Amino acid sequence: MTANAPRIAIAGVAGRMGRNLVNAVVQDDGAVLAGGTVSPGSSLAGADLGELAGIGRQGVAAADSLAAIVDDFDVLIDFTAPKVTLANLAFCAEHGKAIVIGTTGLSDAELAELQGYAERLPMVFAPNMSVGVNLTLKLLETAAKALGDEGYDIEVVEAHHRHKVDAPSGTALKMGEVVAEALGRNLKEHGVFERVGQCGPRDPKEIGFATVRAGDIVGEHTVMFATEGERIEITHKASSRMTFAKGAVRAARWVCGQGSGNYTMSDVLGL
Amino acid sequence: MTANAPRIAIAGVAGRMGRNLVNAVVQDDGAVLAGGTVSPGSSLAGADLGELAGIGRQGVAAADSLAAIVDDFDVLIDFTAPKVTLANLAFCAEHGKAIVIGTTGLSDAELAELQGYAERLPMVFAPNMSVGVNLTLKLLETAAKALGDEGYDIEVVEAHHRHKVDAPSGTALKMGEVVAEALGRNLKEHGVFERVGQCGPRDPKEIGFATVRAGDIVGEHTVMFATEGERIEITHKASSRMTFAKGAVRAARWVCGQGSGNYTMSDVLGL
Amino acid sequence: MTANAPRIAIAGVAGRMGRNLVNAVVQDDGAVLAGGTVSPGSSLAGADLGELAGIGRQGVAAADSLAAIVDDFDVLIDFTAPKVTLANLAFCAEHGKAIVIGTTGLSDAELAELQGYAERLPMVFAPNMSVGVNLTLKLLETAAKALGDEGYDIEVVEAHHRHKVDAPSGTALKMGEVVAEALGRNLKEHGVFERVGQCGPRDPKEIGFATVRAGDIVGEHTVMFATEGERIEITHKASSRMTFAKGAVRAARWVCGQGSGNYTMSDVLGL
Amino acid sequence: MTANAPRIAIAGVAGRMGRNLVNAVVQDDGAVLAGGTVSPGSSLAGADLGELAGIGRQGVAAADSLAAIVDDFDVLIDFTAPKVTLANLAFCAEHGKAIVIGTTGLSDAELAELQGYAERLPMVFAPNMSVGVNLTLKLLETAAKALGDEGYDIEVVEAHHRHKVDAPSGTALKMGEVVAEALGRNLKEHGVFERVGQCGPRDPKEIGFATVRAGDIVGEHTVMFATEGERIEITHKASSRMTFAKGAVRAARWVCGQGSGNYTMSDVLGL
Repeated sequence: MTANAPRIAIAGVAGRMGRNLVNAVVQDDGAVLAGGTVSPGSSLAGADLGELAGIGRQGVAAADSLAAIVDDFDVLIDFTAPKVTLANLAFCAEHGKAIVIGTTGLSDAELAELQGYAERLPMVFAPNMSVGVNLTLKLLETAAKALGDEGYDIEVVEAHHRHKVDAPSGTALKMGEVVAEALGRNLKEHGVFERVGQCGPRDPKEIGFATVRAGDIVGEHTVMFATEGERIEITHKASSRMTFAKGAVRAARWVCGQGSGNYTMSDVLGL
Repeated sequence: MTANAPRIAIAGVAGRMGRNLVNAVVQDDGAVLAGGTVSPGSSLAGADLGELAGIGRQGVAAADSLAAIVDDFDVLIDFTAPKVTLANLAFCAEHGKAIVIGTTGLSDAELAELQGYAERLPMVFAPNMSVGVNLTLKLLETAAKALGDEGYDIEVVEAHHRHKVDAPSGTALKMGEVVAEALGRNLKEHGVFERVGQCGPRDPKEIGFATVRAGDIVGEHTVMFATEGERIEITHKASSRMTFAKGAVRAARWVCGQGSGNYTMSDVLGL
Repeated sequence: MTANAPRIAIAGVAGRMGRNLVNAVVQDDGAVLAGGTVSPGSSLAGADLGELAGIGRQGVAAADSLAAIVDDFDVLIDFTAPKVTLANLAFCAEHGKAIVIGTTGLSDAELAELQGYAERLPMVFAPNMSVGVNLTLKLLETAAKALGDEGYDIEVVEAHHRHKVDAPSGTALKMGEVVAEALGRNLKEHGVFERVGQCGPRDPKEIGFATVRAGDIVGEHTVMFATEGERIEITHKASSRMTFAKGAVRAARWVCGQGSGNYTMSDVLGL
Repeated sequence: MTANAPRIAIAGVAGRMGRNLVNAVVQDDGAVLAGGTVSPGSSLAGADLGELAGIGRQGVAAADSLAAIVDDFDVLIDFTAPKVTLANLAFCAEHGKAIVIGTTGLSDAELAELQGYAERLPMVFAPNMSVGVNLTLKLLETAAKALGDEGYDIEVVEAHHRHKVDAPSGTALKMGEVVAEALGRNLKEHGVFERVGQCGPRDPKEIGFATVRAGDIVGEHTVMFATEGERIEITHKASSRMTFAKGAVRAARWVCGQGSGNYTMSDVLGL
């Protein structure tokens, strides 16, 4: 690993995302695995983080509070739950740490509380930390602007696992919004979310969505630009939570050098 | 070409399907291009069939009636329109010819009239003559029976050109029916044709359909069987009307040796 | 879970495959998680198998030998290493257990030793226990026989992760062999494993292979049958070791009811 | 169609590319179909261009020389053969026309002669006029620069019809070059064109190529950027010569407003 690599702690190392984060920090030559927490009273306190993650002993033990490792880390990565995250955020602000937050499901009140910390510490808060998804959004904007209104039909196809309860995915909708904005269209007006029966020929300004739910698909998104004679397809396939974990570590490395503020993945990636 | 290859005539050689049929007969070593018709009075009467099809001179001129080529052919391929097809069927029955019919859009009365010829000549009548589609249906049946109720989610994704007015495609529905029947499910009960908003987790018995409409896609169908850890996908992609033309020529070769009857593509392919 | 569900023990529950096997047994309503082993002296002895696998407490603790759980299980699943597997095989034969073996890398001598147990207990030994891969081989045979020599070009495309050291994959070669055999071709003669520079037009009898190595792809195989106008593609995508784990559990359920013998996945699946 | 739409003539309307060009001009609201030529003495002289193209009568007859339609057109599109193209270029330069050239296979001497006209008329000369391919190259550059050396493996997969004699395709190589240049790599050093047998794990700087040859595939190219946890795929699929025809018409519309010069598709598309 490089000199001056930031020392990273992970909240909630016993969960699936926590284990992926441990793995991602260890894989990254520009980061140091400095600590991790489990719930107070957990039987996993004291366990080696690497053994918990199934990647072999790393010589760093799970703590049962951030206070126990306060001198060991520079930046916390937190993909836990809203209340835990807000408590950790207060701790980090008080002790001069940076934070990367991937927690979802915050209420409006919780979001406002989180936002209130933006002037007190450097933070990255992003619903999707995948480098690839954020790059894909940039590519879609470029493609939509270049093809413009030259007769290319735009369709978004997404596939997720059987447990996902909403459709289309938030990422698919975001992709549609990026394309619509680049073309001066309104997704509310031009988005087509179902085609059943005699639905007639396609309107040229439609942005169509198709949804697949099956098996254990982590997340696949394709945006197609098709006209007579050719198609351009821009596809993102997540194969594991590692894509989110690695984006979070990249954000953690980046945010350590920043002043107070609430940053996005576009800031991190310089897109 | 082989000895005793059947002599094939094509109805409506000036249309897009007619041109593909000319091409398919010429490519097939087991068939002889024997003639073709254009509408009575067309300026294309007398034109070389190969030049019409854009594949170079074949030495066979377009006729403006079947009567003009009655002695030249053994089997007629007809992808025209219901009234024309029924007239041609009467002609073939009267003159001892076989016939392959890919015409669509027949009314119930016209279908009954067509069916009435089944005892007078050998005919193949099929809405989709693609060898690949018919094989795909067989593969789907095998896969569904083998996977049974072992936790595989089934989804059908289809894509067609922007001009298609109905969804899902008839072929997609047929695929769903084949799978449902193999699993003892009822597509009317278990088919899911839209997922929008908070639709909840997937029911294990669902057969989902997703539809894409874009550009000039001739027709693509994928049936996915997905469970935790793996997916099997069976895909058919039509790239041109040649797939239907070639299936028709294969049917024409086969039907010449048969007794009177109304045969299907499964008969032709021995599936 | 069903009554009379076989009680399954897993060798090597601390490894990646072991954890997947624990998960697969727990998910299967027709199987009981009865025990699991770690290496003698491991600090993980006594740990809960579910917690080790990251799926929550299951109330079954890791043992440090098969002897310690000899009364608890009916069938052992073993994806460990050759020497461990052979010792476990001896133990199972002696104590009237069945066994499912997914261990690879056995020497010829070790294979012979393994085979020697075929008359002493019911065993399934298979290099690839994925239900989907074994089904795919069956579909390929059906497709190849139906399309025969009617001008369909056959290509096998496979993609695996960056660490894979050989190409094409063993599964890709097996797919090519199944197709070649169905067509009466010899893969040694007709297999084409590279195309670089001026290689001329395709020979109709070629079976082409193309290889992708990238990222963390667990394993994707597509066999394409393409002719003018259409393509049929049969694809298998492994998304995690769970596909092998679930196949192994299916084999374990099946093998409990069998007499002594060395069975294959085709036997298990009834293909 | 719009006012002041350029009047377009097409060289060689009897060929396959010529027929596609007629179709593309008719489809384009910003262009007027002004004429087309066939070989001197062809029996197709006088035929309606639309009927030749199979899209119905357009009221414009095929001429047997450019001289016969010299007052009718503003810009010529020429996808014929080197000698014909050079003669047409001389004619256009002399009569104040613009020209779009998609002819391939020019010798070095012919290329030099062509280049000599750059100061005499506005011309677009491009080996691949597909809008999508040119956009794809731009997207690849953006993606490669954003992902840089963060552990993404790059692979290029291309598929073409059975008649193609070289591998990888020129477009695949161009894609590899664009990516290599964006990353400061040398394709000659890092391009990997075959993987057979025990080839060892992947080098992180490799740019791999895989080739499929089958059926009637017009041309499909995918560039994959894959790392642990995710893949981004950028794909171009040509479905017919219409993609080249439409790019040519777009170039013809654009070039009419330009001064003398030899322009590229990047100029036309403003990429």
